[in-house]
Amino acid sequence: MPIPAPNLYPPFNILRLSHVVFGVKDLSASRRFYVDTLGLQVTDETDSAIYLRALEERGHHCLVLSKTDKSDVQSLSFKVFSEDELDKAHDWFKQKGHPVEWVERDYQGRTLATVDNFGMPIEFYFQMDRLAPIHQKYELYKGVKPLRIDHFNCFSSSVDESVAFYNEIGFRVTEYTEDEESGKLWAAWTHRKGGVHDIAFTNGLGPRLHHTAFWVPTPLNIIDLCDLMATTGYVSNIERGPGRHGISNAFFLYILDPDGHRIEIYCSDYQTVDPDLEAIKWDLKDPQRQTLWGAPAPRSWFEHGSLFEDLEPKQSDMAASPIIAP
Amino acid sequence: MPIPAPNLYPPFNILRLSHVVFGVKDLSASRRFYVDTLGLQVTDETDSAIYLRALEERGHHCLVLSKTDKSDVQSLSFKVFSEDELDKAHDWFKQKGHPVEWVERDYQGRTLATVDNFGMPIEFYFQMDRLAPIHQKYELYKGVKPLRIDHFNCFSSSVDESVAFYNEIGFRVTEYTEDEESGKLWAAWTHRKGGVHDIAFTNGLGPRLHHTAFWVPTPLNIIDLCDLMATTGYVSNIERGPGRHGISNAFFLYILDPDGHRIEIYCSDYQTVDPDLEAIKWDLKDPQRQTLWGAPAPRSWFEHGSLFEDLEPKQSDMAASPIIAP
Amino acid sequence: MPIPAPNLYPPFNILRLSHVVFGVKDLSASRRFYVDTLGLQVTDETDSAIYLRALEERGHHCLVLSKTDKSDVQSLSFKVFSEDELDKAHDWFKQKGHPVEWVERDYQGRTLATVDNFGMPIEFYFQMDRLAPIHQKYELYKGVKPLRIDHFNCFSSSVDESVAFYNEIGFRVTEYTEDEESGKLWAAWTHRKGGVHDIAFTNGLGPRLHHTAFWVPTPLNIIDLCDLMATTGYVSNIERGPGRHGISNAFFLYILDPDGHRIEIYCSDYQTVDPDLEAIKWDLKDPQRQTLWGAPAPRSWFEHGSLFEDLEPKQSDMAASPIIAP
Amino acid sequence: MPIPAPNLYPPFNILRLSHVVFGVKDLSASRRFYVDTLGLQVTDETDSAIYLRALEERGHHCLVLSKTDKSDVQSLSFKVFSEDELDKAHDWFKQKGHPVEWVERDYQGRTLATVDNFGMPIEFYFQMDRLAPIHQKYELYKGVKPLRIDHFNCFSSSVDESVAFYNEIGFRVTEYTEDEESGKLWAAWTHRKGGVHDIAFTNGLGPRLHHTAFWVPTPLNIIDLCDLMATTGYVSNIERGPGRHGISNAFFLYILDPDGHRIEIYCSDYQTVDPDLEAIKWDLKDPQRQTLWGAPAPRSWFEHGSLFEDLEPKQSDMAASPIIAP
Repeated sequence: MPIPAPNLYPPFNILRLSHVVFGVKDLSASRRFYVDTLGLQVTDETDSAIYLRALEERGHHCLVLSKTDKSDVQSLSFKVFSEDELDKAHDWFKQKGHPVEWVERDYQGRTLATVDNFGMPIEFYFQMDRLAPIHQKYELYKGVKPLRIDHFNCFSSSVDESVAFYNEIGFRVTEYTEDEESGKLWAAWTHRKGGVHDIAFTNGLGPRLHHTAFWVPTPLNIIDLCDLMATTGYVSNIERGPGRHGISNAFFLYILDPDGHRIEIYCSDYQTVDPDLEAIKWDLKDPQRQTLWGAPAPRSWFEHGSLFEDLEPKQSDMAASPIIAP
Repeated sequence: MPIPAPNLYPPFNILRLSHVVFGVKDLSASRRFYVDTLGLQVTDETDSAIYLRALEERGHHCLVLSKTDKSDVQSLSFKVFSEDELDKAHDWFKQKGHPVEWVERDYQGRTLATVDNFGMPIEFYFQMDRLAPIHQKYELYKGVKPLRIDHFNCFSSSVDESVAFYNEIGFRVTEYTEDEESGKLWAAWTHRKGGVHDIAFTNGLGPRLHHTAFWVPTPLNIIDLCDLMATTGYVSNIERGPGRHGISNAFFLYILDPDGHRIEIYCSDYQTVDPDLEAIKWDLKDPQRQTLWGAPAPRSWFEHGSLFEDLEPKQSDMAASPIIAP
Repeated sequence: MPIPAPNLYPPFNILRLSHVVFGVKDLSASRRFYVDTLGLQVTDETDSAIYLRALEERGHHCLVLSKTDKSDVQSLSFKVFSEDELDKAHDWFKQKGHPVEWVERDYQGRTLATVDNFGMPIEFYFQMDRLAPIHQKYELYKGVKPLRIDHFNCFSSSVDESVAFYNEIGFRVTEYTEDEESGKLWAAWTHRKGGVHDIAFTNGLGPRLHHTAFWVPTPLNIIDLCDLMATTGYVSNIERGPGRHGISNAFFLYILDPDGHRIEIYCSDYQTVDPDLEAIKWDLKDPQRQTLWGAPAPRSWFEHGSLFEDLEPKQSDMAASPIIAP
Repeated sequence: MPIPAPNLYPPFNILRLSHVVFGVKDLSASRRFYVDTLGLQVTDETDSAIYLRALEERGHHCLVLSKTDKSDVQSLSFKVFSEDELDKAHDWFKQKGHPVEWVERDYQGRTLATVDNFGMPIEFYFQMDRLAPIHQKYELYKGVKPLRIDHFNCFSSSVDESVAFYNEIGFRVTEYTEDEESGKLWAAWTHRKGGVHDIAFTNGLGPRLHHTAFWVPTPLNIIDLCDLMATTGYVSNIERGPGRHGISNAFFLYILDPDGHRIEIYCSDYQTVDPDLEAIKWDLKDPQRQTLWGAPAPRSWFEHGSLFEDLEPKQSDMAASPIIAP
């Protein structure tokens, strides 16, 4: 099953991924990780939640830490172009039979809560409180110097079906891994904002969130973070990397937060605004698709993910990846 | 006169800047500069022209060197979203009374040649020959490792009028410099593709091309280029920098090619896809708008630019910048 | 007058430069500069002095800020190989007719205070309190991430005479600038510890201290410091750079502390342990000796320096440098 | 058995490691690796040998590739301070009962060939042909931009005995790993030139050469080399890294040449010229000693090494490292 042609005239205009809400068990432990270590900026803080933004962002938050009993994910949020587009989204999801609800979210305008084709909770809004720029307040740059949220990566029990759904609402595939034998997609990267991806899907027990990525200036900031984490009690939270992905060509590091939510630190992918950009195909048997330099990912990287609140994932019928660190 | 509100529903959909054609007097000297020193890749070469692309681009060319008797600029080119949008562009320019012509351009589909509100030659196309990706052929990365064309910067005899025109066709202002006394714009940065600019305008004898910029991975590549140019006969071609711009926050270097065409090497600006992004205003009297670290630009940087073929520029009625290196 | 042959068997064994004592008028302003901005580590602090070390150093201090009424320099200090060598130094200076004195210095063993051939106060010791390593406490790395003191640079009214003196006590010339017309040295770089210099001399009103340099990991740390200083009230303290020196090949930045003491941030010079290393000669007329990339140094860089306590400098009889920014 | 006190007054003055001669089976394959990929500079080339230097070196060679039938190592070479010191070395080795021989080596002055306490072939010389500096010919900088040879690392069947021997001839221990149970040294790093090591020893079947290291400017050059090797047919020659060593604090990459000789690409260790520098002790059970960030080294890294010509290694009586990648 080949990847679908990009839908250049989608039913509503999604601008970009926006933010994620993590259920975390210990706000102070999460704060130490995201604020003191990674360097995200607190924009609001209560007994039950911490709102964070990265350094070049002007929207109020890209990550919300919500005090809960469980380490889960509450929803993935996207920003649409305008209020009109939000209404079009509402109507489209409703007409397709997805549950739709207008929800109140602090610091946001009208917000649509719905689910994707596998029941994964997603939200759309068109307006969020705007904050004064801080990208030139260099005294705030600490940790890994996170500049912006870059993408989500989700486990899917059928990447073909996930891609078909997100393609229909305008996400364009930039790169993908195919299982040559079955002809099925193993993984796919899809974008709205002009980079390699806003959201990607990888085969496995899904829906679960594989990771959330933050963009940083250069690979040296990632090396600095490794040094910092390795000497401040976080050495076992470094899961994979640093290295260069074959897919996306990005320089990466994967780390785990105190609840096991996986964060990718990411830089150096490429611009994809051309609608006639040809997607790049990778063979599932090519180990360089994962790490250009050849080092395999650890088993945990293929298996561990964050559950969504109140959503039971189901197993994929594809076999496990043949390329897993022994 | 304040900057206009962004036109979120422009008459046709421009994707991004695409390429520029430089008239050069000595192709071999230009080749030594752009290919052997900067590291651009040759995609075609004849006795009269050299076509070049940067390392992450898949379109055939981002820079064309055309053998001429004069060191001038033939046109600035932009890619539109589709053939339909190209036709809309044609009709819009025609209806506005601009000269329009369908021209043949090698490696491109149907191409519209027209001029902007000051007669500056601009072209639009929707299709260019696509080439195989080379962004992971690391043996090709040399010189400054140019990844993509980033923007044009033009002298304008009235930045207010230039901004009004380009805003109407969808370019959104991200940052601008205002002369507090007259209330006029001194300079403005406008984008389509989600960075700080695709095209910027600065007050002066115009229309002339101030510079064309290429995006590189990190500031260290710019330092490498300085070292290389300084020891291969190009020390006097280094005009300004390296440094950090206040405006755009980018790390920059300005160099001059053998014909005096100015090239900016550029990295590290920020993402601007939100339609509600507030433009950042700078005061003409603030020297940090130009160089965050305080060093003034040399006089040549304010005065020198490339002429467009057969186009006589006219003087601006604003005074010269008060902030020029003595 | 050519540079002298290196004295491979000097009268006593100096290991390296060690530290400098700056007279400063406002300890809290100096603390904000050296600790909060540059990132040096406080190892002791009283009402009248702050002791600082850089991140890979294990000796107690490389810089002492001493509260005084005047912004001056109290002495330049060097570490010798052993107590025996310290006694040899004492005897040598005494025999040469220099004033010698055993002085008490906190955190140091026996310390010899004397002066060089022009009366510049210099001190020697063999033992300083050793502190636990902090070079892997990455949470301490801030500002420009200073790793170690690297060198002193002094104005001298006769560089030929300064070089003759320091050469005799074992400092070896690595690079030098000669005035082709007079055959006199304009500047010279001399080392003990295996880098380009522990102490350098440049023509001018002397003795005065031109600057003290700190070694940092990479040029990117210097760019980070520029960004930080430019946005925390120190933009006018950035005097020159960043850039690449022709001489030494190092990447540099010159900044001024609140008292006007000049600090160089420095990295990337080369190893010089071979006793048969040929010194590199530069012509005073070659602007690339100063900045490989061609940018001239500002006039202040040639003229401003720190006075030594109670020492009147005298003018050189050489003309001013022909290469000074207009 | 504790590490010995440094011998501050050794019998002769060794300056630094100098070079190594590798027996290689295919000179053109080795040339492609060392010259075209790593970026070492050819200083002489015949049918049977290639002489190489790194970019800041002025001696004629730091690596000699010698065409042989076997992939072995012919000798490790060191430079002494003067001809006098060479004679002292000769006499000392002779008096200790080591075989001594004056040998002819191209481009070197008088050269002493002898063996260490385990029969490992080592050579000493005081003079090598000096070449013009190339460290500012930036067009030559390619590949990983190797600046200088940094150190050797050898397997030893008794690190305690190796350290005792090399300590006696003046090498000072900077860091070491001890097996807490037996009290024996597992590994030790010893220097002459003021960095963390000129030669290190690690427990195992010895004498064998574990690796030879080259110093490069920054971690980004190591990332560039990974990208280049991964896309030019060398992906399986990347053995370990990149990463940060706990020991030495250096940033590293281990690669294998076409004959299996291991090369370390290395930067960012620290200065060690103080004779009272306290050696840093690591516990064999601490995995961060190897990789600060926690990733284990692969088994091959503990087991594979290069044989010396005509020298049968013997097994250590210590157990294998408890910390080996599964």
